[in-house]
Amino acid sequence: MEAQSDGAGTQAPWPARSAVSRTELDPVSFLHRSATVHPERIAVVDGDRRWTYSELRERVNRVASALRGAGLERHDRVAALCPNVPALLELHHAIPAAGGVLVAINVRLSPNEIRYILEHSAARALFVTAEFEPLIVDPPPGLEIIRVDDGGSAADAYEQLVARGDATGAPSQLTDEEEPIAIDYTSGTTGRPKGVVYTYRGAYLNALGEVIEAELGHHPVYLWTLPMFHCNGWCFPWAVTAAGGTHVCLRQMDPALIWRLLRDEGVTHYNGSPTVQTTLVNHPDAGRLERRVTAMVAAAPPSPTLLARLEELNIRVVHVYGLTETYGPHTVCTWQDDWDALPASQRAALLARQGHAYTTADPVRVVDEQMRDVPRDATSMGEVVMRGNNVMTGYFANADATQEAFRGGWFHSGDLAVWHPDGAIELRDRGKDIIISGGENISSIEVEQAICAHPAVLECAVVAVPHDHWGERPKAIVTLKEGAMATEAEIIAFCRDRLAHYKCPDAVTFGPLPKTSTGKVQKFALREPEWAGRDRRIN
Amino acid sequence: MEAQSDGAGTQAPWPARSAVSRTELDPVSFLHRSATVHPERIAVVDGDRRWTYSELRERVNRVASALRGAGLERHDRVAALCPNVPALLELHHAIPAAGGVLVAINVRLSPNEIRYILEHSAARALFVTAEFEPLIVDPPPGLEIIRVDDGGSAADAYEQLVARGDATGAPSQLTDEEEPIAIDYTSGTTGRPKGVVYTYRGAYLNALGEVIEAELGHHPVYLWTLPMFHCNGWCFPWAVTAAGGTHVCLRQMDPALIWRLLRDEGVTHYNGSPTVQTTLVNHPDAGRLERRVTAMVAAAPPSPTLLARLEELNIRVVHVYGLTETYGPHTVCTWQDDWDALPASQRAALLARQGHAYTTADPVRVVDEQMRDVPRDATSMGEVVMRGNNVMTGYFANADATQEAFRGGWFHSGDLAVWHPDGAIELRDRGKDIIISGGENISSIEVEQAICAHPAVLECAVVAVPHDHWGERPKAIVTLKEGAMATEAEIIAFCRDRLAHYKCPDAVTFGPLPKTSTGKVQKFALREPEWAGRDRRIN
Repeated sequence: MEAQSDGAGTQAPWPARSAVSRTELDPVSFLHRSATVHPERIAVVDGDRRWTYSELRERVNRVASALRGAGLERHDRVAALCPNVPALLELHHAIPAAGGVLVAINVRLSPNEIRYILEHSAARALFVTAEFEPLIVDPPPGLEIIRVDDGGSAADAYEQLVARGDATGAPSQLTDEEEPIAIDYTSGTTGRPKGVVYTYRGAYLNALGEVIEAELGHHPVYLWTLPMFHCNGWCFPWAVTAAGGTHVCLRQMDPALIWRLLRDEGVTHYNGSPTVQTTLVNHPDAGRLERRVTAMVAAAPPSPTLLARLEELNIRVVHVYGLTETYGPHTVCTWQDDWDALPASQRAALLARQGHAYTTADPVRVVDEQMRDVPRDATSMGEVVMRGNNVMTGYFANADATQEAFRGGWFHSGDLAVWHPDGAIELRDRGKDIIISGGENISSIEVEQAICAHPAVLECAVVAVPHDHWGERPKAIVTLKEGAMATEAEIIAFCRDRLAHYKCPDAVTFGPLPKTSTGKVQKFALREPEWAGRDRRIN
Repeated sequence: MEAQSDGAGTQAPWPARSAVSRTELDPVSFLHRSATVHPERIAVVDGDRRWTYSELRERVNRVASALRGAGLERHDRVAALCPNVPALLELHHAIPAAGGVLVAINVRLSPNEIRYILEHSAARALFVTAEFEPLIVDPPPGLEIIRVDDGGSAADAYEQLVARGDATGAPSQLTDEEEPIAIDYTSGTTGRPKGVVYTYRGAYLNALGEVIEAELGHHPVYLWTLPMFHCNGWCFPWAVTAAGGTHVCLRQMDPALIWRLLRDEGVTHYNGSPTVQTTLVNHPDAGRLERRVTAMVAAAPPSPTLLARLEELNIRVVHVYGLTETYGPHTVCTWQDDWDALPASQRAALLARQGHAYTTADPVRVVDEQMRDVPRDATSMGEVVMRGNNVMTGYFANADATQEAFRGGWFHSGDLAVWHPDGAIELRDRGKDIIISGGENISSIEVEQAICAHPAVLECAVVAVPHDHWGERPKAIVTLKEGAMATEAEIIAFCRDRLAHYKCPDAVTFGPLPKTSTGKVQKFALREPEWAGRDRRIN
């Protein structure tokens, strides 16, 4: 080919960039669109209360305007400690609309942990529902606490804020889609929770990714079994809104209530860990649903028994995998055409794989310690690493941890997997210090640190053991100081005073810890007997 | 609220941007993903031939690598003059993968028009199928012409190119998602076609927008009734691929073949103008489809009769509206819950509205000449203007036209609409010089210029008249020079020598042109009698 001159004469051939052709990606735009296109459609169901999209937008506008009016500045953090109530859904839109950054805190944490997050994020305000107010002990100075009664009472500070705000909202302060929209604190492999930073761009693209992978279609009815404080509910507050769907709120995991809602509200989609799914299918109210429901399952592969039971109930499982650092799900085990014909046990084995990256995500890799791809032979183990628009920008106020997590130019999940010839990944083991119990991350190091604070304890190790209901549970092996005494019950109680209860060991055994010649604890040796006869070390 | 200090101590609180968290949006990524996740799924159907996603990716890789090997440089233009054959689908992925910019040319244009586009875009190469080779007259010097036999013959230059290339492809040269991916030439309101520039970002987001608005779901079967040279097939080469769907190719609008494919290939989606739809529903092979098919309709609102007939045939209509400058559709008339209960005529009237902006697009406005919103009273007329990620970056090598189109910071569609109280727009009239016939744009000015070149013609005006099959057709009113003579047939034949045949008037009348006191032709006065009794001036 011969080179040719560009275009016509002296004018620059390519048009200059301009704002006419570029809008910053902003997931709040989905709310404005749905409120315009479907103003009368039900956006939120909460018990007997219902809000249309028009009402939801007005409330969000009011909260955003009231926050701005109260002096909230661009990128100021605003925390929330709420179950899946309408207020938390509204805050997912209102705080970004006000220019703030949402910090949704896990309600199962202990007062100490919550205080640490409030301090570390330097939150200016905290929205808290009545039942979790006791968790706010010794709040950081200057923190404004806004009580969410969530009952519509006139004394409800949240409702007063809504009333105070302007129904037309606050003008957007967003100038760059890579600005932060949220911080999600996660228990990682170190003792203290780290603040995972999400951007507008990431939240927008992930929300569209969820619309596609969950096949939300137009007008889904989404039941909020997954906590919104987990990875911002995997971006579903924005995804379901983009699809013009109905958010069915759920204050707590009440299986009888869930079965009623699945039937009465015409639910089409919900998400949850295998623990949640197991609780549901084993409840006396369980029965085949008239309309097929899609359930995304994460945290651990669903068992063949669970899968078979869900199928009987007309619940289709979509198995996904991800971390807080990847806005929730990053891979999906996409159903393959030729799986239909396979026996149930083989189908379950295939569906246990974590699969391939989302449509909106970059491909994942499984690498060795030199960041080389491991062979795709379904046998060689390596670490799962990710990059792209589905990955956090890093940890808030923790450049060292960011650098460590991003070494080699990829985010290191800490999870160990094999790579199948077809490119699907299959997890075989957790990062060495992570235990996932009922969908919640537990850092074994954090638990060890708590136990070691006991005056009788010399040293200890915490490992995951498989559990039928919770998937995995922490178990502690403790060496006492010479001449010191402590019982299992004492250690557990000591732990529960310091940590969220779900993080505390169910069992404690006493004795010496096996160590390497250089003095490192061999957790492997402690863990293996507990997992004998299983082909993977996640459950 | 009191201001607080940021984060923890001296470390910068917000993580720095890095490549770990950002990937440039690139619609070619969808092909790589689908070929990884669904290697054995059928990606392309063309008569008896079938390619899996794995095969499609390999062919695309080979073409990209061969183009790069032949010296294609970043942003070089590569043209195509093909019907909806597999090669054109492949080029939608291979040319961007090679770093080039695709210029897909309308096969209905005349040799002169095609030559202008090849020259103006400074295309280095042209892919052309055998039947359109005669349209290449006097090609620009240096243009490499690659013949696409599309029959798998060994003499097929395209297949030789495929064979020459490397199956692993060419490394991506994309460094910024706002780089150009395609130029689409359009007949606008001026005589010469203008080259609309699309970006990777725009194509990616629009493709996702189509996945959502058309509810492609997982694994659609898409029939290629809409030409791929129209706005890159509304981004469906990328959208259907993102959804892991099957592209059913279609060389020409053969209604008997279409009915066979709709049934035999299990088609789920197709797109087309009302003219295409009317041809289909009136064909003897028309009959109710077992599986519901979704048909996107653009260019003009479907009539109540057409809608009723499509419903009978189990074809669900999604009415969309846009322009080449908006990557195809920009608005969609989303079905509202309460329309189900309405009588058919009322449903049709509501479905005739062009609706609201896509989920991935910015809201449209209807403005007066001072760029003020017109009242949302369903009566006041104004011009439809757009902006955002769904809008071209401008016209190639035509900064003046870009500036004119983007005046006031919005893209001016030229289309006149009313704005409904619910925010939906409804077109009432075209830009004053556009006629849409069978889904194709015709510039009345271009036709006038061709007619005025006739030695007997003093002046002329071309206006749209409604037509039952084509929607609209051009009609010419001609004033002859004093003493000169010409017949209607002569004028039409003269025109057909110079322009694409679909652009030539069906009828010519002779006489003086009505003019304003300043000497401007009053096209309005010529047009109105043709549209008497209709409440809008588009059909």
